[in-house]
Amino acid sequence: MDRYPALMQDYGLTVDRFLDHGAKWHGRARVVTAGEGGNDTTTGYADVRERANRLSGALLSLGLQPGDRIATLAWNTRHHVEVWYAAMGVGLVCHTLNPRLTVDQLAAMIVQAEDRLLVVGAGLGELTDQLVARCPHLERLIVLDDDDWASQSALPTMGLENLLASAGRPVPWGQIDERALAGLCFTSGTTGAPKGVGYTHRSNYLHTLRALQADAMALTAEDMVLVAVPMFHANAWGLPFAAPAVGASLVLPGRAMDGASLGGLIARHAVTVAVGVPTIWLGLLDHLDATGAETPSLERVIIGGSSCPDALLKRMESRLGVTVQTSWGMTELSPLGTISPRNQAGGSARGAGRPPMGLDLLLTDAAGEPLPEQRNTEGHLKIRGASVVQSYYGASQPALDADGWFDTGDLAMIDHDGNLHLAGRSKDLIKSGGEWINPVEIEEIVGALPSIGLVAVIGQTDAKWGERPLMVIEAAQGEVVEDAELKASLKGRVADWWIPERIVRVEAMPLAATGKINKTQLRATYGGA
Amino acid sequence: MDRYPALMQDYGLTVDRFLDHGAKWHGRARVVTAGEGGNDTTTGYADVRERANRLSGALLSLGLQPGDRIATLAWNTRHHVEVWYAAMGVGLVCHTLNPRLTVDQLAAMIVQAEDRLLVVGAGLGELTDQLVARCPHLERLIVLDDDDWASQSALPTMGLENLLASAGRPVPWGQIDERALAGLCFTSGTTGAPKGVGYTHRSNYLHTLRALQADAMALTAEDMVLVAVPMFHANAWGLPFAAPAVGASLVLPGRAMDGASLGGLIARHAVTVAVGVPTIWLGLLDHLDATGAETPSLERVIIGGSSCPDALLKRMESRLGVTVQTSWGMTELSPLGTISPRNQAGGSARGAGRPPMGLDLLLTDAAGEPLPEQRNTEGHLKIRGASVVQSYYGASQPALDADGWFDTGDLAMIDHDGNLHLAGRSKDLIKSGGEWINPVEIEEIVGALPSIGLVAVIGQTDAKWGERPLMVIEAAQGEVVEDAELKASLKGRVADWWIPERIVRVEAMPLAATGKINKTQLRATYGGA
Repeated sequence: MDRYPALMQDYGLTVDRFLDHGAKWHGRARVVTAGEGGNDTTTGYADVRERANRLSGALLSLGLQPGDRIATLAWNTRHHVEVWYAAMGVGLVCHTLNPRLTVDQLAAMIVQAEDRLLVVGAGLGELTDQLVARCPHLERLIVLDDDDWASQSALPTMGLENLLASAGRPVPWGQIDERALAGLCFTSGTTGAPKGVGYTHRSNYLHTLRALQADAMALTAEDMVLVAVPMFHANAWGLPFAAPAVGASLVLPGRAMDGASLGGLIARHAVTVAVGVPTIWLGLLDHLDATGAETPSLERVIIGGSSCPDALLKRMESRLGVTVQTSWGMTELSPLGTISPRNQAGGSARGAGRPPMGLDLLLTDAAGEPLPEQRNTEGHLKIRGASVVQSYYGASQPALDADGWFDTGDLAMIDHDGNLHLAGRSKDLIKSGGEWINPVEIEEIVGALPSIGLVAVIGQTDAKWGERPLMVIEAAQGEVVEDAELKASLKGRVADWWIPERIVRVEAMPLAATGKINKTQLRATYGGA
Repeated sequence: MDRYPALMQDYGLTVDRFLDHGAKWHGRARVVTAGEGGNDTTTGYADVRERANRLSGALLSLGLQPGDRIATLAWNTRHHVEVWYAAMGVGLVCHTLNPRLTVDQLAAMIVQAEDRLLVVGAGLGELTDQLVARCPHLERLIVLDDDDWASQSALPTMGLENLLASAGRPVPWGQIDERALAGLCFTSGTTGAPKGVGYTHRSNYLHTLRALQADAMALTAEDMVLVAVPMFHANAWGLPFAAPAVGASLVLPGRAMDGASLGGLIARHAVTVAVGVPTIWLGLLDHLDATGAETPSLERVIIGGSSCPDALLKRMESRLGVTVQTSWGMTELSPLGTISPRNQAGGSARGAGRPPMGLDLLLTDAAGEPLPEQRNTEGHLKIRGASVVQSYYGASQPALDADGWFDTGDLAMIDHDGNLHLAGRSKDLIKSGGEWINPVEIEEIVGALPSIGLVAVIGQTDAKWGERPLMVIEAAQGEVVEDAELKASLKGRVADWWIPERIVRVEAMPLAATGKINKTQLRATYGGA
């Protein structure tokens, strides 16, 4: 006998299997895409699969080869999902682009990825023209929802329906090595050049099974899942894979992610689980409070992407009547890193939950040495496991340390029960007189003042101390706040030498495309002596 | 760039990772082993891991090499779990044996597997001696719980604790190809020679993630899981892997699986989920009814192994106050094939549930041709997917058809929602006058009579018809039942020509080691003309 005889069936871990499964075993599940004025469209996985599979044939007929990259610049719609599966099912690599990035950023990504095709969603004609001008290697445009298409581009352009009608033909899916690339997503680039994370079929498959655990996203065939996280953010946290895998229904909001639009979708489709960043739910809460509308079907909200203030958590739980599951992730993790289970009480006590099976966390000191005590001590957070980046796209060197750990750039504490508590970004630490100041601790105290809209603390070069903290303030609307009051709020709550001497007021805090405060820009403006 | 550049981390799917994860991230989880008179022992995954890892070193010190098989003949205890992980963590193959099989059967399995070591649990000294006499190639015995050890064997014998104390040393786990064998389990052999199913690390890993889905076993870190399915039955349905993977606590009943013992364990340890075959729960119900005891902590019971009468299902749900999840599996499927979700109403309407992601079902005619209509039609059930057997251990030919499907030997219907409804075994079908009779339909009607204990219908050779059905009856205690009454019960409910002319009464129905009626033996006795 062989050393490794093939006693169990060969079963490749490829993502096309998720849609196959949903189509065959979950005929009741729905795929809803939001439309103008509540004119949503509803279909099922069998229909999505049939179209996606014929679209695979159409893509191959355009001369695309397995391994080729195609870019998508689009919102969360069934057509975008169809393009994903059409591409991945025959070994093409789906490169998702965030329409809210700058033309410069997007063009750099398209050039680096050598995308052959650009697939564009509704209302993005102008941006597309600018990108086409900057990316002469692009061969073709495919327009997903061409009713309102307006473009000056001379590039060969075809609507999705025309392409399907003219060249669509069923082709076999899944004849793909599970370690081949399925997707490509560049990090948002708030710090330095964007870096591409290449997802393989295998990494996506394992991420999906991890996310489906009962203490993680726990989707079931009874769930209606509102995907309020864009497909260009780390695969919409994997939901277009996870939902068909278990027959959960997908509710795709398209472009409109305001509170009224999401509230309407939740009500019309009896959404049970909603997934997205905290600011999205702030918009929903404001809408509900303003209109008196309710969301009785909603059972759970899964948040991530940035830390969520306790006050917002509590407001969500009481106003929406839901369990809020907090999570932590990164593009580099596919993206789920940790998540708190649905059956645990909310609030800051639980932090961002535990890593599901397949991931391992390590805390180190600034030099990368593991902390001798891994619990209840703050350190630099490293991670390793399935679906964690090894090398960035096109990089010649791995992104890991010698022991295989990926440095997340986060500062964190892990409590006795294994829950992760984030404590800021290591690059945001300020070294003053040889000692570290963590700006997050200052920001949390000042940010809780009613008079403050947004606050950021950065390091400013200082001749005597190396760096000193500088506080940038955007006051709440109509509010004025004195330096003395700000400093007084910190007195006794942080060390005296942490309290910033210099305070700057801005009309509008600079934000990155992801909605996070752009500290890179603040440092460029205020970081010098 | 490479065609498949290593952009995501290499992460081998090996089972040692489950215990690693439980030990590091789930310090609160418990591993309970039942003891005499309620003297249970309780520990945690970190302790089990530490001992199992040192035991790996001890096993290697005995000269064992990766790929070697070691047999275990033992009940569900923490020590048995430790031996599993100790063996699998360093690439040894854990061959589980069912102490309720005959010496002949067990010896044939040990010889075919070429097991080098036999690990034995409590109270099995006499059986061990018989096996040692039949298997001269065995090199050594390891005794798990040696308080009551009694053996005449001349084979080198060592207690687990002595082995750990004398040769235990930590060794690295997981330097194993994920396609290497981790386990070996022979089918029960009620029909013909036992066949070995070899589980790989990869197949077990994928099975575990599949079983953990929210619509499948849905274990959480809050669960206390009573493993009332033996570890020698298809890896105890994967629970010793699934529980540490999510930090669920394990409650291991040891040898005593009677109602009183299980009821006591459930009460003492606040068990939330209990897993085992229907007859086990019948024993529990009888105990509770007799004593008035209650099991308030119990939320769910997961059953499988054989179909469950509706009356028993309803009795479980009402008396235990639980949700019953029905399932269908086979040793060849690792073993989970289909399962009904916890949130669906019970009873025969749901059948045995749907296949989780990673499995696919096909219905064919007797010649193996796919039925044109796959829903609401009865056919021969085939399956393919991850964690499904490809070839039996040592077999020169795959166990699959040309399209990669494994014939389960079951007859089944799949309803509109994808739920599987089993309809008997294809080999039990009786061909009479060129037409098929399904004995299960007769057995269900007659078996529902209060005067009947057990009933089996087999084919008997017949000169005119080829075969005719013959009914074997074991009356309920103290009951007498006339042939006319039996035939009358069938009149109008099955075709007249299905009704057996010949009826045989037995004192005790022959049962296989799994508790199922041994039709092979019935055919040998009564099948001739």
